This record gives sequence, structure tokens and C-alpha cells, in this order.
Amino acid sequence: MPIYSAPVKDIKFILQNVLKIHDSDIPGYGELDNEYLNAILEEASKISSEVLAPLNAIGDKHGCSFENGIVYTPPGFKEAFDQLKDGGWTGIDCDIKFGGQGLPYLISIAVGEMFASANMALGMYHGLTHGAYSAIYSHGSEEQKEKYLPNLVNCTWTGTMNLTEPHCGTDLGMMRTKASRKPDGTFQISGQKIFISAGDHDLAENIIHLVLAKIPNGPDGVKGISLFIVPKFLVNEDGSLGERNQVSVGKIEQKMGIHGNATCVMNYDEATGYLVGEEHKGMRAMFTMMNEARLGVGLQGLSQAELAYQNALAYAKDRLQGRDITGVQNPDELADPIIVHPDVRRNLMDQKCFSEGSRALILWGASIIDKANRNTDSEAEGLIGLLTPVIKGFLTDKGFDMTIQAQQIYGGHGYIEEWGMSQFARDARIAMIYEGANGIQALDLVGRKLPQNQGRNMIAFLTILKTYLSENQNKSDEFDKIFLEPMKSATDDLEGAVLYFMDKGIKNPNEALAGSYDFMHLFGYVCLGLMWCKIAQASHAAINLSSDHDDFHQSKISTGQYFMERQLPFTRLHLARIRAGSSAVMKLSASNF
Amino acid sequence: MPIYSAPVKDIKFILQNVLKIHDSDIPGYGELDNEYLNAILEEASKISSEVLAPLNAIGDKHGCSFENGIVYTPPGFKEAFDQLKDGGWTGIDCDIKFGGQGLPYLISIAVGEMFASANMALGMYHGLTHGAYSAIYSHGSEEQKEKYLPNLVNCTWTGTMNLTEPHCGTDLGMMRTKASRKPDGTFQISGQKIFISAGDHDLAENIIHLVLAKIPNGPDGVKGISLFIVPKFLVNEDGSLGERNQVSVGKIEQKMGIHGNATCVMNYDEATGYLVGEEHKGMRAMFTMMNEARLGVGLQGLSQAELAYQNALAYAKDRLQGRDITGVQNPDELADPIIVHPDVRRNLMDQKCFSEGSRALILWGASIIDKANRNTDSEAEGLIGLLTPVIKGFLTDKGFDMTIQAQQIYGGHGYIEEWGMSQFARDARIAMIYEGANGIQALDLVGRKLPQNQGRNMIAFLTILKTYLSENQNKSDEFDKIFLEPMKSATDDLEGAVLYFMDKGIKNPNEALAGSYDFMHLFGYVCLGLMWCKIAQASHAAINLSSDHDDFHQSKISTGQYFMERQLPFTRLHLARIRAGSSAVMKLSASNF
Repeated sequence: MPIYSAPVKDIKFILQNVLKIHDSDIPGYGELDNEYLNAILEEASKISSEVLAPLNAIGDKHGCSFENGIVYTPPGFKEAFDQLKDGGWTGIDCDIKFGGQGLPYLISIAVGEMFASANMALGMYHGLTHGAYSAIYSHGSEEQKEKYLPNLVNCTWTGTMNLTEPHCGTDLGMMRTKASRKPDGTFQISGQKIFISAGDHDLAENIIHLVLAKIPNGPDGVKGISLFIVPKFLVNEDGSLGERNQVSVGKIEQKMGIHGNATCVMNYDEATGYLVGEEHKGMRAMFTMMNEARLGVGLQGLSQAELAYQNALAYAKDRLQGRDITGVQNPDELADPIIVHPDVRRNLMDQKCFSEGSRALILWGASIIDKANRNTDSEAEGLIGLLTPVIKGFLTDKGFDMTIQAQQIYGGHGYIEEWGMSQFARDARIAMIYEGANGIQALDLVGRKLPQNQGRNMIAFLTILKTYLSENQNKSDEFDKIFLEPMKSATDDLEGAVLYFMDKGIKNPNEALAGSYDFMHLFGYVCLGLMWCKIAQASHAAINLSSDHDDFHQSKISTGQYFMERQLPFTRLHLARIRAGSSAVMKLSASNF
Repeated sequence: MPIYSAPVKDIKFILQNVLKIHDSDIPGYGELDNEYLNAILEEASKISSEVLAPLNAIGDKHGCSFENGIVYTPPGFKEAFDQLKDGGWTGIDCDIKFGGQGLPYLISIAVGEMFASANMALGMYHGLTHGAYSAIYSHGSEEQKEKYLPNLVNCTWTGTMNLTEPHCGTDLGMMRTKASRKPDGTFQISGQKIFISAGDHDLAENIIHLVLAKIPNGPDGVKGISLFIVPKFLVNEDGSLGERNQVSVGKIEQKMGIHGNATCVMNYDEATGYLVGEEHKGMRAMFTMMNEARLGVGLQGLSQAELAYQNALAYAKDRLQGRDITGVQNPDELADPIIVHPDVRRNLMDQKCFSEGSRALILWGASIIDKANRNTDSEAEGLIGLLTPVIKGFLTDKGFDMTIQAQQIYGGHGYIEEWGMSQFARDARIAMIYEGANGIQALDLVGRKLPQNQGRNMIAFLTILKTYLSENQNKSDEFDKIFLEPMKSATDDLEGAVLYFMDKGIKNPNEALAGSYDFMHLFGYVCLGLMWCKIAQASHAAINLSSDHDDFHQSKISTGQYFMERQLPFTRLHLARIRAGSSAVMKLSASNF
């Protein structure tokens, strides 16, 4: 039976010591004193371990079922979902006007990590509802907000996002779903949408589908796409549920993982829909939610890596096999625990430095979103726009890799379903694909975010790095050597890649795009490097304040050293691949592959 | 429906143009003329596509079942297995004395790739039988050979390998299965074995289990292990089947993949067993088969990568999404095929250069095994001993990675089981674990093979590289620049790692072991680099001989260039990680992780 114990101490350490949220001027951060923060995180931890985690394997094994047009979630999901609703966990950062808790987005991410580790498939039902909330909150009319938001905030109703069609995923300009205006101002929506997570289920009274569709005779391509609310049950004027809308489930997909979440084919057959925002501005509405949604998927990468790591670590301490080559550690037994072996440690340290560094990165990202939204800070908005594809693409790629490494610790047992490691890997795999496959994240990063605002966002990020390096050097020889020197080298690699793209990409965009995936990873390592420098500094500071032997913070410094020595050198590799250019990538004609 | 088309042209190119088998002095190679080779490969290709591949998804979906003590394979497996038997495919390289075809091992590997791509789970039933054949062939008595081998060669009976127990996998010294000698010279075998692939099934009349067990009062640890034949049905003097032996299936495992192969818990309850070879020399008997078995698993890494690549390539040519940034390629449609996009190509080229390079490596490895066995060449034996953990560990790690990259090409469809990409990844995952998990391969490489014969095997391999480099330089500026220069740099990295281990590892073995996994990968990239140099040379030679525009060989050269530019730089990364040493790896106490 897999274990999960929420890393509350680590989360608090990042929030308080690394991000220093109590010093922040972001509205709402000042109220997050130690006691309040503790209460939230401890309670979320309890629900994660006691309610959500025990259902994780059950959800995987049973999956969802589809009988006579009705979708059923796995046993226990409804009761657990109700507990999340009743505890107010579904609206942590939603507007208090609509029943939310009004807390910073940062807190919803801190809690979200725990929920996603404990049960990723279950967490998606309210995660997607939050997406629908955000879309209507940002772009809906006052009437729509009042009609839909309170029930979405408390998850009496849930939400979905309907973008993909069988013949179009990334390229939404090819969309065929039609929205015909009716005389009463509503629309008739017709078409088929696929891969709709939480598309139907038995957890909520109603489901509010947000559907992208084309109004006939609008502009071609993505410029002709509009966004609609299409409720499963129409909502009467008084807020009560009315008749069933013409939307139905075609089938549910058999997937590699996240079996507990129903992935539906949705058929819209002249269903009644309500325009959100302006006609033909649907893509813009989707884009405003995207940073948040993509950060949430990056979080899933971390969450599965953390879950897998916790189990692998426990197994490595418990499993007796072989002897420490430098001397017997466990003389009373026939063998030592496998954590004594250098290569097992190498594997575990890869995982540990990923999880802890990523947690810092994602919480930093969430704080930038808060800054952008709560301080209406356009620089913060530019910065998070730049970081979002990195957080989504890099953390889900590496997060998946870490679940595979964790599975490897178990040897043969890792391949047997009952031990749970297979599920973590299978669940983690989707995060590399949905909400924009990682190749698309790389394209967004290099093709769109890098040149955005005449490159100002990238320059701002490089400035953050360089300012950090210059302000922190010469304080300690050891810190300079172990942390700042490799960080400076990695920063040079990042800048080298940007200069390469500027030089070559202008003449031939393929020169830049052929290196886009490597750039995303190079960027990701640099981000984690910065996080580890800051974690090490915060740890040194905490050690200096404490008179005890402080294993927690000492361990952070050692883990940081491991990251700088063993992971950060990846930047040089990615730069070499980028500088190889597009020639060998583009040379073959399709028929000569 | 996934596709598979055996890469016959590629296999022939490696055998004839790169390895130049017609020039070899290895007995049996001279007979492999073009016509004969063609006939074998074309026929194997036909069975692969027509018989085995159509059952691959069926095997995954149905899996094996276990009812009333009997194991059933998926629908169609028995008929396909019979076709393999009837065609003589199960004994390609077995001794003609026992009904085999007596062909070189090289040919069984060439054919094995196709069978493993087409249906890995089904291929394991005869693959393991081959392992049992080899064990008895090398270590059994004449009587045992005559009794068991003919039926194993033609797979009327199949075989298994029983090593692992619940509490011991890698560390076989902890084994508890007992073998008590009976007055008649046979043994009573009692104990439980787990993870027994093909442990029971309905494909064969009898199953010959090869079981490691301890004879009481023997030496401690692995030195007290002996090898036994334990048939499912005892075999009478006249060769007919006798009574059922006391061996039974406890359960079959629910696994991440290879669902079509029954992985059994086997219970031995005073079962009758027959000693193979000498008492307490069981491990030695297992070790002699290990190079071959591990090469076979490395082959599975390639086979799933190739299968996934073929499907991803077809999808990338077919799926219309987005436009070529340098100009519309497909004006009659709303979008271009995704193979126009640089990052899709980067992904496909990673896969292509892996599959083609690995095929050369594994066939080269098989030819070294033939040289060792057929020429009783001890240098060849030393060399393949060194290369085996690299081929097993590196090709299965990267092979799995390539199935994940191939799956990514499909976007959301890659995650849906019906498209097949999930199965390829799930099946490929086991190859990193069984036949010695890849961490153990790295340990074997650095802890055992590197220092073996006073390091002579490693020196011999470095000499192969350096001789190649010096003999081939200055023939063509372009070849020097694109191929030899990076190859020289990678060779330096490999030598640098060896020197680091020699310098540091003697004082502290953890310094070497902490870098063992990176060394295995560094070594793997160097091997593929050498293969790509040779492929490029063979292609140049073929182009020079031909007057046609030769796309096949031109494509090889471009793919080689891609490998040298984009993959070979990994050697520098791994060297950096190795040189980081063991300090940060070993620093944390287990409780501080």
C-alpha cells in the first residue's frame, strides 16, 4: 500500500524562509501569519493523507464507468469530493463575493500540491471547475457570474473546458463546432469535442461546460472562435435546475492513467449555449486562464514526483539487499538497506533535489501570479508569461522522469501494479501532454514569449539572475564556489542560447525552433538553480539563528550542492544541442525518414 | 490500429555493409550469402507483420488469466506460437544435433528484433526457452541434453528461469529455496519464486523450470547456490510425460505491461529436481548465459523504440496541424502535416538515430558473441563481457525514453490505449528492470567488468576506438569534421571517466560507484558514436558505388550527423556528473533524506 505524507514543513520553509511572504507587499500575504498558515496546511495535509490518498489506487483500479449514458466515478470518490466541498477547499482563492475564501493563489497552489499528490485524478474535478470559474469570473457578464459562480466555487456544480476536436488539438483554427445565434440571443451549439476531462460524472448536480465554437460567417481561423457556457442542465431564472441540455457523452476513453477521472467524448447537438465575453474573442478568454492552468499542470509534475519519491525512499530504507561496499551497516541482518548503495542514493538525490527545487519554483511562480493580479503589476505579468511554459513543460517532463526513477528503486516490484509505482508514472505521463503538449510549450516559449514586448520579459529575467549573482557574491567562499559559480555558468548558457536565437533565428526561424525544446529545459535548470541558491541561503540563515544541530537545513544545503554538481551541468548540454542548429533537423524530406 | 513493418533493408545494410559479415572468419558467416540472408529475413518479416503484430494489442488488452490453477494466454497466442514452432523459428541458432538450425547467434538477434517489435510478450515465451536451452546445453549432462533439448529447441516444451524470491532479487545470497538430496540422486526442491516470466501457460505440453536453490550445509551466500531442472511434468525414460511435479502457480501478477506474458509466483513443494552441473556452482552456470540473456533484453529496448518510432513517424506524416513557419507545404488542406515542424522533427530524429545506431550496436555485439563462441576467442569474450551491461542498461533506458518521445508525437491520442503508444511504453518499461535492473548493470560495469583482467577489456575497447580514429582520419575533411572530431572528443570523455575511477575509486570505491550509472550512459553514447561513424562510412562507400541518387544512404549520413551533433554531446554531461564525485551523494544520513 503506497504511502503519502504531505511535506508541510518543506512548504512552510519555502513560503516563510525562501519567499519570505510575510515581507511581501502583495495584498493578502500579510495576513498569512505562522499560525494561520499552519492551520490551513495541517488541515489540508490531514485530508490528503486520510481522505484522498487512500482512494488513489482504488480510482486507478476501478476507473470510471459509462453505462446507459451515465458516467460513474470510482467507489468513494463522491464522499471524498463532498468532504472537499464541505471544507471549503474548492474555493480557496475564489472571490469572497461568490463564496470563496479570498486567499492568495499561492495558498491554493500550496494546498493543491498535496491534493494532487494524494489523488491526481480526483483533484482534477475541482481543478477544472476552478478553470471554469476563472473564465466566467474574468470574461462573463455580471448576470452570468451571479448565476454560475457561487455553485462553481463550492463545487455543487463542476466545470469543464472544451477545446479539442478529433481533427484539431493544437491548431484550434480548424475547429468545426458551430454556434448559431437564436433570436433570443442564446446560441445553438453543435459539434463534437474530445478529451474532455471530467466531462461527465456523478459528483455534482450540474456541469458547466465552457465550449469553444465558431459563429458562422465570422473570421477564419482562431480569430473566429467564441467562448460559450453550455450547462448540462439549463439553469432557471431562480437558480434552480431546468431541463436537460442537448449535450451527451459519446464514450469515455480507456487511458494509460488518471483512470479515476472521466475523459469524455462530448456531443453537442443544438445544445443551448450562452456567449461569454465578446463574439470571436474566445481565444483571448482562454489565454487569460492559461498561465494559471499551465502552472497547475506543472504542479502535477511535481506532485507525482514527490509522491513517487516518498515511496521510493521508504522502500530504499526498508529493502535489505547487498552490503555497503565500505563496511557492513546492518550486522544483525543478512543485508543492508539499499539506501547504502551509491547508485541508489544517486537516484534518490536526483528525485529529492527535483521535488524540493520545483516546489520553490512553482510557489515562486504562484506568487508572481498574485503580484500580477493583486498588484496589477504588468512586469510580473510579463515574467509569469515567460516562466509559464517552462514550469509546465520542464516540470512535467522531469516530474515524469522522476516517477520512472522512483519506480526503478523497487526493482521488479516497481512493475507490479499493487505497489503503486506504475500508477504514479502512468498518471504523471498525461501532464506532459495536456494543456498544450510540451513541444507546444517550447514553441510558445521561443516563438512567442521570448520576443514578446521586444524581448523585455527575457531581459528582465536575465537581469533578475545577474542582479542576484552580483548582490550575493563574496559573502562566503564556500557559497561562491558551490552555488554561485555554477549558477553564473548556467546563466551564461541561458544567455548564450538567447543570443544564438537572436543571431540565427531572425534569418531562419527554424534555427530557433529546432532548439526550442532544449531551450525550455535549459531555462528550467536555470530556474531550479536559482531556487537552490536561495534555498541554500535561507538554510544558512536558519542555521545561523539556531543553536541546535539543524539536520533539516543542513540537508537542504547538501541537496542543493547535489543539484549544482549533478543537475545544473545539463545547461551546457542543452546549449550544445541548441547551437547545433537546424541543419540536420530539417535536412531529410518526409519520405526519407 | 498500430502498424509494424520489419526494417529488413536496414538490418541487411548493417550486416552486409557495416559489419561486412561476408568477410568474417567466424564459422557460419561465410554461408550467409545475400540470397540466403534475404530469404530468412523476408520470411521473418512476414511472420512478424502478419502473425505476431496483429496479436500485440490483443495480448495487452486481454492479458493472461489464472483460473483454477491453470494459466491461459490471450486469444490467438497458441496459434501464433505454433506457427513459430512449425517454421523452426524457435531454434535458429540452436545446435543441429538437437534439432536447431545451427545458424549464427547474429541471425537469431536479427530475427529476434522483428519478433520483439511485433509482439514482445509473445516473444518472451520462446526467448526464455532459449535461455533454458543454453543453460542445459552449456552445463547439463549428456543425458539431460538428450532428454530436454530437442523439445526445448522446437518449443514443444518451454523453459523458465527461477531466481528471484520475495525477499531477494539482486542479492541472491539470501536465497531460501532449498534442495534436499534424495537417495536416488535427485533433489526435493521447496520454496517460493516470484516474477517468473512464462512460469505457466497453455502454449506447451511441458515447462522446464530452471531453479536456483541451496543444498543444505553448503557454503553461505551465492557460493552455496546450485542449479536444478524442475519439469512441470516429470519426463519418463522413454521421453514421454509422466506425473505432475509438485510445482504450482500461486498467482499471476497484474503488471504495468507485457500483459500477454504470464508473470507467475511459483511454489515448489518438495518438487523433484535434477542438478545441473556441479553442486554449489549454480551461479556460474547462470553467469555464462547472462551475456546472451542481457543482450536479448537490450534488444527489447531497441525493438519497442523501433515499433514506437514507426507509428510516430506515420502519425507525423498524416496528422495535419499548423503551418510550416517557412511557408505553406500543403495548400489544399487547412494545415500541413506535423512533420514540417522543427520540434516534431527533433523528436523523430532523436528516435531515428537511436534505433538505427542501436541496431548496429546490438548486431555488432551478437557478432562478438559468435566470435567468442565459434572461434573460442577469449578477447572477444572479454569485450562482450564489458559491452553487455552497456547494451542492456543503456539501450533499455534510452529505448524506453524513445517510446515516451514517440507517444508525445500523438498528443492526447498517445495517452489513449486504443492508439497503442501507451502499450509500447508500458512494455518497454520492464526491460530496464528485469535481467538485472539497470543500476545493477552499472555496478557490474564499473565494479566488475572495468577492473576485470587488470582492466584489459577496457583498454582493448579504448584501443579499438583510438585505432579506428587514427586509421580513418584525413580521408575526407567533411567526415573528419562531422564525425571523427566529435568521436575523438567523446572518446576522451570516456577515457577521462576511466582515469577518474582509477585515480579516485581505489581509495574510495564510492567515488566510482556514485558515477557508475553515468558511466554506463557515457559508454553507451560512445558505442553509438562509433556505430554512426561506421554507418556513415559504409553509406559513403555505397553512394560512391552507385550512380543513382541514393536517398537511403544519404539519409543515413544525415541521421549520423544529427547523432553526432545532438546526442554525442551527452558524454560531456555524464563526465561532469562523474567528476562531481561521491561527496554530495553520500553526505546525507538515511534519516535526513
